[in-house]
Amino acid sequence: MEKLAQIGVTGLAVMGGNLARNLARHGHTVAVHNRTAARTRALIGEFGHEGTFLPAETPKDFVASLERPRRIVVMVKAGGPTDAVIDEFSPLLEPGDVIIDGGNAHFEDTRRREERLRSRGIHFVGTGISGGEEGALHGPSIMPGGSAESYRSLGPLLEDIAAKAPDGTPCCTHIGPDGAGHFVKMVHNGIEYADMQLIAEAYHLLRHIAGYEPARIAEVFDIWNTGRLDSYLIEITAEVLAHTDPDTGAPFVDVVQDRAEQKGTGRWTVQSALDLGVPVSGIAEAVFARALSGHVELRAAAASLPGPRRTPLDPRDAARFAEQVEQALYASKVVSYTQGFHQMQAAGQAYGWDLDLGAIAAIWRGGCIIRAAFLDRIRAAYAANPAAPGLLADPEFAREVGEAQSAWRTVVADAARDGVPTPGFSAALAYYDALRAERLPASLTQAQRDYFGAHTYRRTDREGAFHTRWGGDRTEQRTD
Amino acid sequence: MEKLAQIGVTGLAVMGGNLARNLARHGHTVAVHNRTAARTRALIGEFGHEGTFLPAETPKDFVASLERPRRIVVMVKAGGPTDAVIDEFSPLLEPGDVIIDGGNAHFEDTRRREERLRSRGIHFVGTGISGGEEGALHGPSIMPGGSAESYRSLGPLLEDIAAKAPDGTPCCTHIGPDGAGHFVKMVHNGIEYADMQLIAEAYHLLRHIAGYEPARIAEVFDIWNTGRLDSYLIEITAEVLAHTDPDTGAPFVDVVQDRAEQKGTGRWTVQSALDLGVPVSGIAEAVFARALSGHVELRAAAASLPGPRRTPLDPRDAARFAEQVEQALYASKVVSYTQGFHQMQAAGQAYGWDLDLGAIAAIWRGGCIIRAAFLDRIRAAYAANPAAPGLLADPEFAREVGEAQSAWRTVVADAARDGVPTPGFSAALAYYDALRAERLPASLTQAQRDYFGAHTYRRTDREGAFHTRWGGDRTEQRTD
Repeated sequence: MEKLAQIGVTGLAVMGGNLARNLARHGHTVAVHNRTAARTRALIGEFGHEGTFLPAETPKDFVASLERPRRIVVMVKAGGPTDAVIDEFSPLLEPGDVIIDGGNAHFEDTRRREERLRSRGIHFVGTGISGGEEGALHGPSIMPGGSAESYRSLGPLLEDIAAKAPDGTPCCTHIGPDGAGHFVKMVHNGIEYADMQLIAEAYHLLRHIAGYEPARIAEVFDIWNTGRLDSYLIEITAEVLAHTDPDTGAPFVDVVQDRAEQKGTGRWTVQSALDLGVPVSGIAEAVFARALSGHVELRAAAASLPGPRRTPLDPRDAARFAEQVEQALYASKVVSYTQGFHQMQAAGQAYGWDLDLGAIAAIWRGGCIIRAAFLDRIRAAYAANPAAPGLLADPEFAREVGEAQSAWRTVVADAARDGVPTPGFSAALAYYDALRAERLPASLTQAQRDYFGAHTYRRTDREGAFHTRWGGDRTEQRTD
Repeated sequence: MEKLAQIGVTGLAVMGGNLARNLARHGHTVAVHNRTAARTRALIGEFGHEGTFLPAETPKDFVASLERPRRIVVMVKAGGPTDAVIDEFSPLLEPGDVIIDGGNAHFEDTRRREERLRSRGIHFVGTGISGGEEGALHGPSIMPGGSAESYRSLGPLLEDIAAKAPDGTPCCTHIGPDGAGHFVKMVHNGIEYADMQLIAEAYHLLRHIAGYEPARIAEVFDIWNTGRLDSYLIEITAEVLAHTDPDTGAPFVDVVQDRAEQKGTGRWTVQSALDLGVPVSGIAEAVFARALSGHVELRAAAASLPGPRRTPLDPRDAARFAEQVEQALYASKVVSYTQGFHQMQAAGQAYGWDLDLGAIAAIWRGGCIIRAAFLDRIRAAYAANPAAPGLLADPEFAREVGEAQSAWRTVVADAARDGVPTPGFSAALAYYDALRAERLPASLTQAQRDYFGAHTYRRTDREGAFHTRWGGDRTEQRTD
């Protein structure tokens, strides 16, 4: 009898091919399939020596080459292609088999697909995979949703090929039922947008207020990378800023057009947060900043709008300012994560997922784009208090942000005064100040709503919903 | 032969009843119908003397009482109830008849309904109606979508009952095909959220930095209402702030719980803007501020987070600060409208609506919640340049915001330093500074994307898409 594969991968573009190679390199026998067989052959030709692959040219052969329960990783484009592959393979499968969607599907699509396949006894596991092409090959962070039963069969394989956190634990855990895995991957990406925006603002401030050149700023990021900001994104920022364009000899960052693109998960994160009623202003500002950068015509029309006169700082003040920027960046980052984790908590309640926020932080410590020393702190915070009402409720984060707040305020104020746009830093500080405010002007907003729309209000001193007869004698009536 | 009605209204809750009365008061014969006939009888009993109503107890009688082409205004809850009414009435209608949905439907639902009914020759006119209950009775701002043909039959009736702008023109115009009317109403509401948030921030600043009591702040708003901020929302803000709670003798705004609610159009606006790639940070921050205000548990957990020490201003500085707040409020308002109008422009292109932005500004001058002297300025700006790349491209607005920018910066900086949350003011200023920036740090963001995801970048000095081999020798390759 021929040897069967423990797992199969269909869709062998770079991500799928690298995942298959990663599995094979870990000693697993991997069935591989692609809609056009040429790609399968190319993979085997180039990387077949890395492990045991069972190439298949038809879905039927592919399925036949898998041991039961079958585990099929689908690595095709999100949307229609994913549905097409599911429709093609699922008639060939049996109850207990597992389909793993490793693409960037919208979690609502995953919920729909999981429900449909569940009715036929097939496990559908929407799985977030972060780390890009390199991660897929060398160890990504893996966020599988779907049933607990499917994870018993699938988990050991995925944990095997996942990145390992600095403490050696695999960056893979069962996130929760149905779309939970894709949801958490989406929020990961939203947080990634926020992280990148905050870094961009820090760079911009050091460039235009401290007056540093990119090479000098690269050194600053290198130093930051040895401290609490230690992370992949800070590390590559230093590398990008230190890079000289081979063509012109100019700083590389100056020859790149200042238009940032996006693929959609950041936008989805904000749209979902709006549905859940969770303020994620840091992520929203990051998405908007990318969008704005691409509106060339608007920017051209606004180019002559007046700004303030800037005076460059002297070197000593510049160094001090750079330290303040580190504080502002760190505090703003804490707010971004507070917002993203709040969104996951709210989604967990709304969708019945019972998410373990500490475990999610733990599997982001390695493999993924936002990997950072910082995430172990978040893991620890939720380990200490799994139901914590927000990261800022953690004594350690509260202390740090409290210590940073004065510098943070200075940086935001200086940016406003000097005309350097810091939408992310400013939104984060406004969130912090709103959250800790004893009273918010939302009372005025609600009173206005009662004035023009009879939407009623609640009182601070007694129960009930009330309406004031604004157009009449201004007496108050209880409406509930 | 019995007299037939020019128009019918089904759904006689307060909004529907008031619209029917408004039509009757203008001399039109109005057929009225409600699912439960008691409500129809109550309307006739209480207001039957105001004009000529033809009450009907069944959909069939209702439709039979209308002249052809029939014009039926549906005033029921958005969502399922609207579909139910359409399903009930449309079989009774003939090609050329018109169904007007005056509820707050999502524009995508309206597009779907319009398409379905169009195939049967029935005009479906999703219509935004703003002004609340009072507006419905005395003259709302009306934003009808649907076919141009339907507007020829319907327009005169709607213009008749619409509010009149200060120059006497009716606040009603044909917005554009299918869902354009509901889309524009949605953006109206999004702008309303932003307006209210900016007003709330101005109040909060005057309270906590200038140290003014609500009654004093009411006077400030009264003065502002005589200038360029002249608007309904500023007017009612002054009234709310001047109001004393009859129960306790305390300022009314202090007895109202500081939790602002929302119904969904603000959220929809931001979600749509994200789809369209339009930065609407002012509206987003307004929606988030309301959401944040309701997260009681998070706020309680954050209540002890440290803030800065505040020193109250002396009276002269306070008065000067209040003037600066007016400048900041005005400039931020210009940005909110810039963002909202950008969104409408983008939607017009995306959905093929060919929106007349000046005409839209014109019909918001009266009847609706955001009615303001300011809107005539926007009308004029788009009249002068219908394809203007944003309001800030208008020389007048550019001049004003340019003059305001110094005070605006001071206010945002003071708020950051003094711990008063101004998410709206700050987001608006960041937008202004980003839009006018010669270079944005989006170049760094795009370079990072190329680093970890091979997403490529464009260069400032030549055409093409490029990728740097970050993991290798760091040479550059052209990828297109």
